[in-house]
Amino acid sequence: MPELRKDPVLSRWVIISTERGNRPQFYVDEVARQSDPAECPFCPGNEALTPPELYSANSGGGKNGWSIRVVPNKFPVLRIEGSLERRGIGMYDMMNGIGAHEVVIESAEHSLPPSRQSADNLAAVFTAFRQRTLDLYRDERFEYIMIFKNQGMRAGASQDHPHSQLVALPIVPKRVLEELEGSVGHWREKKRCIFTDIIGQEESSKERMVYSNDLISVFCPYASLVPFESWILPKKQQPAFRKCTDADIAALADAMSVLLKKYSKALGENFDYNYILHTIPSDAWCRENMPLANSAYSWHIEFYPKLSKSAGFEWGTEFYINHTLPEDAAKALRDAEV
Amino acid sequence: MPELRKDPVLSRWVIISTERGNRPQFYVDEVARQSDPAECPFCPGNEALTPPELYSANSGGGKNGWSIRVVPNKFPVLRIEGSLERRGIGMYDMMNGIGAHEVVIESAEHSLPPSRQSADNLAAVFTAFRQRTLDLYRDERFEYIMIFKNQGMRAGASQDHPHSQLVALPIVPKRVLEELEGSVGHWREKKRCIFTDIIGQEESSKERMVYSNDLISVFCPYASLVPFESWILPKKQQPAFRKCTDADIAALADAMSVLLKKYSKALGENFDYNYILHTIPSDAWCRENMPLANSAYSWHIEFYPKLSKSAGFEWGTEFYINHTLPEDAAKALRDAEV
Repeated sequence: MPELRKDPVLSRWVIISTERGNRPQFYVDEVARQSDPAECPFCPGNEALTPPELYSANSGGGKNGWSIRVVPNKFPVLRIEGSLERRGIGMYDMMNGIGAHEVVIESAEHSLPPSRQSADNLAAVFTAFRQRTLDLYRDERFEYIMIFKNQGMRAGASQDHPHSQLVALPIVPKRVLEELEGSVGHWREKKRCIFTDIIGQEESSKERMVYSNDLISVFCPYASLVPFESWILPKKQQPAFRKCTDADIAALADAMSVLLKKYSKALGENFDYNYILHTIPSDAWCRENMPLANSAYSWHIEFYPKLSKSAGFEWGTEFYINHTLPEDAAKALRDAEV
Repeated sequence: MPELRKDPVLSRWVIISTERGNRPQFYVDEVARQSDPAECPFCPGNEALTPPELYSANSGGGKNGWSIRVVPNKFPVLRIEGSLERRGIGMYDMMNGIGAHEVVIESAEHSLPPSRQSADNLAAVFTAFRQRTLDLYRDERFEYIMIFKNQGMRAGASQDHPHSQLVALPIVPKRVLEELEGSVGHWREKKRCIFTDIIGQEESSKERMVYSNDLISVFCPYASLVPFESWILPKKQQPAFRKCTDADIAALADAMSVLLKKYSKALGENFDYNYILHTIPSDAWCRENMPLANSAYSWHIEFYPKLSKSAGFEWGTEFYINHTLPEDAAKALRDAEV
């Protein structure tokens, strides 16, 4: 059974999951990547290689009846069965590693460069995120659903086939907590959403803007951690991604598809990236812990192209060095015609 | 001039330093590494390739009169000249990127595997850290001196020649602040140093212990972020590394040299790693902001072998997955005979 362990100094939870083995050699060699479509567990025809499907959609008329599929991760970092059993080990806090870990197979195509991912396909992916989140929150053990994508080997993907992941957690991650606290602090002082204030400043100064449609703003954040980082935000304050309308999702899909094309132009066709969808925790958690978050916070996507290795300096200090001006990155992306 | 920019939501500072160029290609290709000793700026005979020396020592009788040298970084992320000029850009906070960035060349030998780094050599390196820190703190603009080492390409080192780095900062990094707050919280409740409590539990349970001498404890922390992470701590509460005695440094050097040998046995001779020395901020900062930190906090080294790539999940959430039990890692290191 995986464990969740809490750092006593920083109050940060870590998943200790030994399911994939714990010998040092394992880490040195990394997982063998499956680049042959014939053996790819995410390709049509190989559906039996994944655990049973949780969700599928067929907007594109995929040849095996699906254009996207959601399945449980075959190597989950958390387990769905069991109870949390929070307990102390001397001065330390731990609980059982209860959670869910799902994979969103984004396309029937094995090789789909970011620039070719259509707005329709992206809308189907975001709709799957919404649907799976709503379903997972019916389990009251879960406080937060984390959604992220690792694209490419440099970004930590273990499969070439385009996919993203959902992890349902029995705790709220520290970074999300800090964002909630920061936005609630701003709200208490100004009675305004900090993210809406940021969009206001970015849309008016323009120098870090990348793209904007009716409902969504895309810009390189003022204090970008890494070169070419961007944030994708709803223009109107909206705490929970799971409460997006179809129109919100269509606007987000449009913005993401334009952004992926712009990155492909500026950084090369097969650039690697991570993105993380930040959203509000479960309704129960918010009610009990931070009801103001519903007015103060906005969901958003943080997008990190994987251009440079992170070095020791960032590690363990959370103090980042970025060698690219966000204004220069934004200009390069604005100038990239798509 | 580099800039320090503050994230308005998380209150986290980022260095934006464009000195090394800001074209995307730069990041894709990384810096060309210098593995030929004839052209290595850190090798004896090539002293003219570095900026003028700030400190040197010759315990080992090096052939050009030094066994270790400290020089300014030729590509500093912060600049020593100028004033901070804190200012607001709309809702954002920034200041000039004032600071110092120094390199500690740890040996005259170009290739020195971790297992061959002697306790004497390490004591000279730690003495240089202490000396440079005391000197840099005479500049009242500096609130924190960050000390870290990137060993090997996988850990982000741009030079093969063994070296570590000091960065003097005009702010205290967020992670250090969080550690200080965590320890002061513990102190208020229990009137005890949390790090001393941790050592007490580790030395008594023994299952995560790696090594211990009269003054220093080495163990794999309960909530390790990465496989084979270890912490090196003074047994007696001691807030500032810069106030270490020669005896403390000798004990630390002994522990580090044993640990490096144990890692080499367990993980392979040329394993890559990062370590970060965490210590208390400047005396002026502590007096003004957190006087209790002097009783509540202890300096320590966090050691991260670079075995696995970090994936998107950790990124942007500060929620880590570790596939190795800290107890298993500690046992492998205890069993590694040196």
